[in-house]
Amino acid sequence: MNFCSNCGSPVETKVPPGDHLPRFVCTSCGTVHYKNPLLVLGCVPEWENKILLCKRAIEPRLGFWTVPAGFMENGETMQAAAARECYEEALAKVEIRSLLAVVNVTRANQVHVMFRAKMLTPEFGPGTESLEVGLYAESEIPWSDLAFASGEYTLRKYFEDRAAGRDDYHFTELAARRAI
Amino acid sequence: MNFCSNCGSPVETKVPPGDHLPRFVCTSCGTVHYKNPLLVLGCVPEWENKILLCKRAIEPRLGFWTVPAGFMENGETMQAAAARECYEEALAKVEIRSLLAVVNVTRANQVHVMFRAKMLTPEFGPGTESLEVGLYAESEIPWSDLAFASGEYTLRKYFEDRAAGRDDYHFTELAARRAI
Repeated sequence: MNFCSNCGSPVETKVPPGDHLPRFVCTSCGTVHYKNPLLVLGCVPEWENKILLCKRAIEPRLGFWTVPAGFMENGETMQAAAARECYEEALAKVEIRSLLAVVNVTRANQVHVMFRAKMLTPEFGPGTESLEVGLYAESEIPWSDLAFASGEYTLRKYFEDRAAGRDDYHFTELAARRAI
Repeated sequence: MNFCSNCGSPVETKVPPGDHLPRFVCTSCGTVHYKNPLLVLGCVPEWENKILLCKRAIEPRLGFWTVPAGFMENGETMQAAAARECYEEALAKVEIRSLLAVVNVTRANQVHVMFRAKMLTPEFGPGTESLEVGLYAESEIPWSDLAFASGEYTLRKYFEDRAAGRDDYHFTELAARRAI
């Protein structure tokens, strides 16, 4: 950040009065500009014991596989965001179910929130951000070609819980640099 | 938003190529500026069957009561944010425990995430954002003087679950305007 989005003047980095962290502060109008973590919402869509994965058509990690997920928009709930991303990336309509995983990706200032989901019909296909979309059994998951560590964590917990007949939620942190 | 934070030129509102929603786009350098929901993290700190509440020293809702909560910062986990806010507002050190409530405050573009917490010592006091801090039994909660609807929802679920001996998590949406 170089300029104030309110008045267009240069910003400087300083700790505002009463605050404890450096912020971008406008040198003219004094507006404090905060930078906060972004929410990424996704789901594991299930149909007859198989799950839906997308091969990414965009960077980062073009050509690698992911669960449908993306940035939450203003005005929607977490569940609505997860369902919307699934439709955009995999053209699949889902019912969002229980919370599965919360991945604090502190190195990227993101929080990834993943739900279990049930496909409402067997229809799916590649959205504009996907090269290919498919339903995979547990034995067919391309573990070595997954795009993001948060997706891998999500899928491992999904299958662990399914094997154990549980519906738990799981928190973890991805602090070290790695493709997420 | 009026000006580009990258180059200082005016922004316009338009749907970028490949996108489906209007964004702030720089008329000069072309940078797309996204606006996304903010995370508010909080907890219900417990000590010997009483819970810790703060009387707000700042707007909004100055003079009303709240559980310790505030905006999550870059570089921290949800749990770290909840514990930090508790220390800042109530000078209480806590261990964050299970997930209690996720409140999608769609009308304010916020997501409030609340955990159960255990105070590590009986020490507490008003931080700079609090007028007063106290431990309250369920029968003493000032229900009609709570600052935010998300806090009220959180406390109701906390006591419902405690009465039932459960440790569940709860999602809700606050869409209509009301003091949150």
